[in-house]
Amino acid sequence: MAPPAPGDHEARRKDVSEAVWRVLAAKGFGGLTLRAVAAEMGASTGMLTHYFPSKRALVTHALDLLEQDTAGRPRRTPPADGLPTVRAMLLDILPLTPADTARNRIWVSSWDLSLADETLTAQQGDRYARLRDTFRPHLETARGLGEIPSNADTGQLASAAVAFVHGLVVQALFDPGRFPEDVQIAMLDDFVARLAGPGTDTAPGSSRDT
Amino acid sequence: MAPPAPGDHEARRKDVSEAVWRVLAAKGFGGLTLRAVAAEMGASTGMLTHYFPSKRALVTHALDLLEQDTAGRPRRTPPADGLPTVRAMLLDILPLTPADTARNRIWVSSWDLSLADETLTAQQGDRYARLRDTFRPHLETARGLGEIPSNADTGQLASAAVAFVHGLVVQALFDPGRFPEDVQIAMLDDFVARLAGPGTDTAPGSSRDT
Repeated sequence: MAPPAPGDHEARRKDVSEAVWRVLAAKGFGGLTLRAVAAEMGASTGMLTHYFPSKRALVTHALDLLEQDTAGRPRRTPPADGLPTVRAMLLDILPLTPADTARNRIWVSSWDLSLADETLTAQQGDRYARLRDTFRPHLETARGLGEIPSNADTGQLASAAVAFVHGLVVQALFDPGRFPEDVQIAMLDDFVARLAGPGTDTAPGSSRDT
Repeated sequence: MAPPAPGDHEARRKDVSEAVWRVLAAKGFGGLTLRAVAAEMGASTGMLTHYFPSKRALVTHALDLLEQDTAGRPRRTPPADGLPTVRAMLLDILPLTPADTARNRIWVSSWDLSLADETLTAQQGDRYARLRDTFRPHLETARGLGEIPSNADTGQLASAAVAFVHGLVVQALFDPGRFPEDVQIAMLDDFVARLAGPGTDTAPGSSRDT
């Protein structure tokens, strides 16, 4: 039998990745095994050991897929600088569509694995630090525009925004019936509106005229 | 050999539960196996099958331990009704001590497992609904005391408080260096202070004199 043409090899690799993703979306990292991926493809585990010589290789590929899917997901065009951009970035994280829900479910599932491994814990910690950093310039713009108090701590607000949206993701994943799209968006709008008020980081009256 | 006295049996059961807890704190549910618990105890897996005839029985016991530890954890005495009680309840959730960190780490780890099982997903969803409900009466007291606007949506604020604190738990678990105790408390105080301001749930000017 002739070896498969390069195009076939690429197509098969894509099939494998899609099966890994479907297993993750249904069963999480706790259910990610060569056997489960093989069953999802109707293939043999022997075929899969060609792609993944170890469980570790399978998990590494799964984490790569998650990064790629997250980086490549569609994003909203912010309607304006400052807080509207912060709102759009937070909306891009929430599980508002089936694809967003699957991605979030896989991220939450990955936390068990990542917290059990020092290297993965540090990588994930750095990843969230970078995520918080993407919010800061927009919070600084909001401060410059007077949308939030002039002495607001934008680093702390960025941390608060990421904390709030991740916690809302968890609530929505466990209870989609109580957290449909409109409830998630209303909660997010309320959170963003409160950024405009004085927190503990602003001295009393310092940002008010009276 | 005589069978063990009832007291020995209870002591051994406690040893097993403590070993399960240590494995969970170090490796999460993804690392919870009879073999790992046996190694933690210096016992045989055969001895453990007496307590846990299946992986499912081990996981069920682990989830029970998590519930018991959470229910029995020490709590702060709130200094006053209303928002100070809300603040104290949120502080009781944050990973501020090693014991609180272990408990939170095990909860976050359990999400992978729970999201992969419809029954566990529904149980966890109901559990978080009850947690949100514990905040509502205190938010209603805060509203009565004028600490938050008179038309604030206490149900939505309870959901926001749980979302914020769970997301902060996740950030702190992955990055304890950037989220030491004082940073977590400062973020919480800022969040609670913002509850006093007008959100989107309050009509503009409706809670102000001017």
